[in-house]
This record gives sequence, C-alpha cells and structure tokens, in this order.
Amino acid sequence: MDHRIGEVALTVLGPDGRPLADQVVTVEQRRHAFSFGNIGFDFVHLAGGPDPAGKGREQSFGGAADVDLDQFAEQWLGLFNTATLPFYWGSYEPARGAPDAARLTRTARWLTERGIVVKGHPLVWHTVQPSWLLGLDLDEVERLLRERVRHLAGGFAGLIDIWDAINEAVIMPVFANGDNAITPLARDRGRIAMVRLAFEEARAANPAATLVLNDFDLSSAYECLIEGVLEAGIQVDAIGLQTHMHQGYRGEEEIGAMLDRFARYGLPLHLTETTLVSGHLMPSDIVDLNDYQIPEWPTTPEGEERQADEIVRHYRSLVAHPAVRAINYWGLTDRGSWLGAPVGLIRADGTRKPSYDALSALIKGEWWLPPTEMRTDAGGSLTVRGFHGDYTVDGSPFRIGPDGNGTLTVGLPEAR
Amino acid sequence: MDHRIGEVALTVLGPDGRPLADQVVTVEQRRHAFSFGNIGFDFVHLAGGPDPAGKGREQSFGGAADVDLDQFAEQWLGLFNTATLPFYWGSYEPARGAPDAARLTRTARWLTERGIVVKGHPLVWHTVQPSWLLGLDLDEVERLLRERVRHLAGGFAGLIDIWDAINEAVIMPVFANGDNAITPLARDRGRIAMVRLAFEEARAANPAATLVLNDFDLSSAYECLIEGVLEAGIQVDAIGLQTHMHQGYRGEEEIGAMLDRFARYGLPLHLTETTLVSGHLMPSDIVDLNDYQIPEWPTTPEGEERQADEIVRHYRSLVAHPAVRAINYWGLTDRGSWLGAPVGLIRADGTRKPSYDALSALIKGEWWLPPTEMRTDAGGSLTVRGFHGDYTVDGSPFRIGPDGNGTLTVGLPEAR
Repeated sequence: MDHRIGEVALTVLGPDGRPLADQVVTVEQRRHAFSFGNIGFDFVHLAGGPDPAGKGREQSFGGAADVDLDQFAEQWLGLFNTATLPFYWGSYEPARGAPDAARLTRTARWLTERGIVVKGHPLVWHTVQPSWLLGLDLDEVERLLRERVRHLAGGFAGLIDIWDAINEAVIMPVFANGDNAITPLARDRGRIAMVRLAFEEARAANPAATLVLNDFDLSSAYECLIEGVLEAGIQVDAIGLQTHMHQGYRGEEEIGAMLDRFARYGLPLHLTETTLVSGHLMPSDIVDLNDYQIPEWPTTPEGEERQADEIVRHYRSLVAHPAVRAINYWGLTDRGSWLGAPVGLIRADGTRKPSYDALSALIKGEWWLPPTEMRTDAGGSLTVRGFHGDYTVDGSPFRIGPDGNGTLTVGLPEAR
Repeated sequence: MDHRIGEVALTVLGPDGRPLADQVVTVEQRRHAFSFGNIGFDFVHLAGGPDPAGKGREQSFGGAADVDLDQFAEQWLGLFNTATLPFYWGSYEPARGAPDAARLTRTARWLTERGIVVKGHPLVWHTVQPSWLLGLDLDEVERLLRERVRHLAGGFAGLIDIWDAINEAVIMPVFANGDNAITPLARDRGRIAMVRLAFEEARAANPAATLVLNDFDLSSAYECLIEGVLEAGIQVDAIGLQTHMHQGYRGEEEIGAMLDRFARYGLPLHLTETTLVSGHLMPSDIVDLNDYQIPEWPTTPEGEERQADEIVRHYRSLVAHPAVRAINYWGLTDRGSWLGAPVGLIRADGTRKPSYDALSALIKGEWWLPPTEMRTDAGGSLTVRGFHGDYTVDGSPFRIGPDGNGTLTVGLPEAR
C-alpha cells in the first residue's frame, strides 16, 4: 500500500504568521485522492426532481424511486466520493430533441455542492437506445451521435469532467441482443472509428475531461482493441474495466492477473462497474447477464457475510495495485438494483448489510485519518502520514499527494 | 457458386492463323484458380532429402517419415494445387546460423516443377522455437527475428510467394503454454508492432509476396486485432482463419456467420488450417488442442463416413462464400499427423478414406472440366463455361477468370 500513502512535514503558522510552537492542533482527512465511487442514479429522482417523461422511462441499470433522500444521502455520502450519473441515450432523450438536461444538471450540482466528483456514463453505447433512432440512415445516426456527445461533454463541462466516452466497443458491431441504431453504425465504421468519434468529439467539447474507454470484455479482445486505439493515436485517459460479479467473486489471483494485463499500457485503470451479490449466485452458463430474469433474488445472511468478506478482499487487492485509480461500485441499495440482484451494501428496507460496515471500516477506517490531536514541535512542525488526499489542520487545508515526502507550511486564520 | 464460374467465347485459330471452323477440339481444365491446398510437410523428407539435423528435429505438426514418395505424391497431386511447407524457427534453424534452407529449397522446387504453388508457414510465431533463442535480450531477439523474416521472404522469393507472415498474434503476448523468446517480445512491443515487424520485413524482402495474417482465434479478439492492424496502415493481403475441428465440425451456419464477420474487412479469406477427424472427437473442454495427448487415436468406419460427409459440406459452404480464396487442409495421411489424430484423407496404411474420394468428386469432378470434345462453329468459335482456372484447347492454354464473360482467341501451333 506504500504507493497510496504519503507523509508531509507540516509547519503550522499562527494568525500572526509565526510558527505555532508546541501546541495541540487537530489534523483530519477530508477526502481520498483515490476515487471510491458508486452510481448515483437514485439522486436523479431524489435530488434532481421527478421524471418529466413520466413512468415510461427506461431505468433498468439501477435506481429506486421511493427511498428517503436524507437516509439514502447519509449512507451514500458516508462512504463514497465519486458519483456516476446515467446518460443512457434512450432514457436521457426518450423524445427526440427533449433531453433530460435540467434534471441531470440539478442532480450533478447537488452532488458537487457536497464535495462529490460526478462522472457521466456513457456517451456512446448500443444499449438503452431511443426508439426514434431506429430506421434512420447511418450518416444521420452518426451526425446525431456526434451532436449528442458534444451536447453532453460540452454542456456539462465544469460540472461533469469524467465520462465513460464509449462503453463496450468490443461487442458493439456484433451485438445481437436487441435492435439498435448504433450496432449497424459500428459494424459499418469499425470499432476504432467509433472510439475515435467518441473521444474526439468529447475532447473537443471539453478539453479538460478525463475520458474513459470502458468494457466488460476483459479478454484478449479488449487488449487488441486498446492496442489498436492507441496505435491510432487516440488519447485515452483511463482504461475502464467492468467487474460485475453476479456469478461469483473472481478472487484476488484472477483479478490481479487481469489488472497486470491491462496495466502494461501505462494508463490508469478504473474499475468502473463492480458488484458482489449477497444472495445466491447467477448460474455460470449465462453469457449476457441481462438474460437472467427471475421474479425475486433475495439477500441472505450467509450471502451477506460472504459479500462482506469478498468486498474487503476485492477492495484491498484493487487499492494495492498501483495502476488502479478508481473503483466504482454499482449500486448502494438492493432497491431497484440492476437485474433485481442483491448487490447493494444496504438492504431494500434501508438497513446496512455487513458489507457496508466492512467497506466503511476500510475507506473511512483503516485507510482514513479521523480528527486527531497532534502536537507541534518547538519550530511549529509536525509530521502527518496518511493516504493521499485532502486534509485539514485546525480547519486549514493541505494535501498529501503522491510526490513523495514534502514540506508544507499552513497558515491558520485569525478565528481558530 | 456463380462467383466461381466463368464463361468465354473462344475463337480457335489453326496453325495457318485462320479460324478453325466446324471442327472437334478437346477442351480441358488444368488448374483451379481457387487455392485447394494441403500441407506438404512430408515432401520435405521425401523430395527434399534426409534431415541434416538427424532425428532430433521437432516435427510435431504433421509429417511422416516413412511413406512411399510415388504413392504419396500421386494422391497428393491428384487433389491439391497449393502446398504449405514448414518453416517453424525451431525446426528450420535448430542450431543457430545453420538453417535448413537447401532442403526446403529442393522441396519447394520439386513442387513448383509439378505446377504446385508453394506457401511458407509461418514467418513469426511463438511456438516451435529454437532453444538457443531463450535468454537473449529483447532487442537481440527482435534483431534475429527481423533477420529471419528477411532471410526467408527474400531468400525464397520467386519460389515461395505466399507466407503466413505472422501466426496467432492474438495470444502471442499472453501465451503461457511453453517458454519461448517471442512471447516476451510481443508483450513488450505489443501485437500491432509484431504484426508490423512481420509484414514490413517480409514485404521489403519480397514485394510480390501475398502476406497472410493467420489466427486460430476467430472471436471478436481477432476482429479487434485486424481493425487495429488496418488502422495502423499495415497492408494485409489475406486474413487467415484456422479451423482445426478435432472437437467436431462446426457446421455451415456457424462457419458462415464467422466468414461474414471477417469478410467485412474487404480482404480475401484463407481457410489456412482445416481438419476434420474420422475417429472419436476430442473432448470439448480442451482449450489448447496440444494438451490432448493420447496413445492412439484410431480412424473408424463410422468416423470415416462422417468425415466424408462433413468435408463435402464444409468445402461446399466455403467455396460458396465469395470472400474465400483458399482452403488448406492440414494433412493428407494419418501417418505422423498432428496430435496423432485421424484427420487424414488417407489411412496410415496408404489406402484412401471415403473423404478423399468425396473431396475428389468435388474438386476434380463436379467443379472440374475433364477432357471434353467440343465442336467449333462456322466462325471457329465455341463457348466454354467452367470454374475459374487454367484450361487448354487441344493443348493450347487459355484462362477463365473472374472478369465476366469474355472473348478469347487461341492459336493452335503447327503440330496439333
């Protein structure tokens, strides 16, 4: 874990500008530099407002209508620092020309006001497509897709500066589990052209954005795609790796070998979509997880213990890998979860599962510096060691970054 | 099959230069334009001469030491027009600096003298590697590999003008079934860099060569690799698709869908490695076929009937697909066949299996014009319709090509 931890020699100055010698101050961590994220789909209803398109809107990848905002927000904000918001074309713009921009803007603002980094998902994908796109010719689909990417990346710039630029490009041109207008376009233009379209339009509209290439296919196919994309000179800011584990935790060894394969491109790795179930496992012969439709998928006490154990092992192994910069869990509660699976850290009744507390014990426990009294020396200095991130000393901010042992001077304001 | 068949209006001139009106001439096909190939590994011993390196040479992908050249050649030449010869680095140059060039040259010459097109396999691969390459540093391995590609592509130019330029690049950097010096190189340089190395060195050494990108991985991974390679501007002359079917015939539907996926790159498709067993099938859970090692794998009467049926269906479906330009079967006899599998068209005792006769009934029967008496009209003309290829009329050559209905004039020499 050494690559996650830094140390600074801090000289604290009093309001008079002189070193605060031999005094007790309170140091505390405010934020992890590492991105511990979750989807924030529920916030769209809760904080953004009711769905202007009514109940017909497709919302199939996670999101519950009827949870309590205060309780939900407290649980969510207690653990995570990055929220992924849904921009599926079919649900974002169910009627042509009437995007759900105002509501998503309100939601993103509500989150950023609470210190949460907001990520958008996804700019280009072949699933959850608007029906009005079907039947248009390829050039028109491409034109509209480019327009959409610019509208989102440009329109939300400053509020949302991380995007899954393209999702699941490996399967995109051969996807056969649902009619859509993007698959024929990808088939005609090719995968790399689709990736270029997404990245170049988004980059032009928001040059400051972090643009992620995201896929569930973690086989050699994705490696080949990445190699082709890099060869084509497309600037990728991070490699997104989905790890939905409805069929069982893959274990540290398999995940570690997978990370090593993708780390060799020298790009940050984002674990964009991570889930572990706290009930029975999905049969391993299901290929497209969406094909597994059951009336009820309950959480169980044994499943919850297993999930808590696995989430700790999973997060430990991911954070230990130097290339990983972000982990995004896919859902906070079992309510309205994708596929109805008990993947949440919170039960449908709003109570915490063991996994919530176990993850909290890492992110906000073992890997966190709570408010801690420390004494400065005769020169007003003290040494703080902790996970990279944002800290305060008696309320004044400083940062522990990855640049090695540093020295910092922090001035305290008049009113301590 | 219309795309395989042409028609020419032939005007036959007598030795005096005047149309040969109202006469009987003999028209016959001499060669298919379509490449019906097989490996010719056995010819290396039989026609090239004894192995200068002795019995220690690795010869594990097909090749029998003790068959009779005359019988073998008659059976081989009776069916095929293209021979693949082995240039595995480890068997071609078992001792550094002492390549088996003279023997391979004699073999290739023996074949070309009999009208056979010779193909070399493969220039770059990670399997059957010389042990002396292990332990050298990556730059040295790359230098030696480039030297090898130039030596082969350049040294055999004119005699061998078709090469599998690189074999199995998809798995190359992650191959874990045997130590070799190429996998670490591919891991460091990347797949596309390896493909570029193979194609650019070979192209420079023999600009007239047809260079094939060949793989057994027919999944999206190979599509992604191809898209990256084309995006990188590497000129690929044909896409090679292996279809070893030791685990069972995949059927017209699956093969057809696969061909469609790869046909969309607009490149010729070569079915480079095709096999169908005439005994029991290899269990489907074997991933690397090389891992299936059994003491004996007998051919059976039921298996032979099945193989004959399947080979006809397989060849019909392949020849029917407009993108396919070549089919290479992997082995003529069961003697010394790869994995000891009964994939041959000839039994180990030298007798023909039903598959030989069934394939012959297609290639040299249904799809072939045997010597046929035809009568010219009053203007000396007649119409010949047949599979694209080389023909003669009373011994004088003409060609039926893919350029549509043509008119040709053929002059007969003095001594008919």
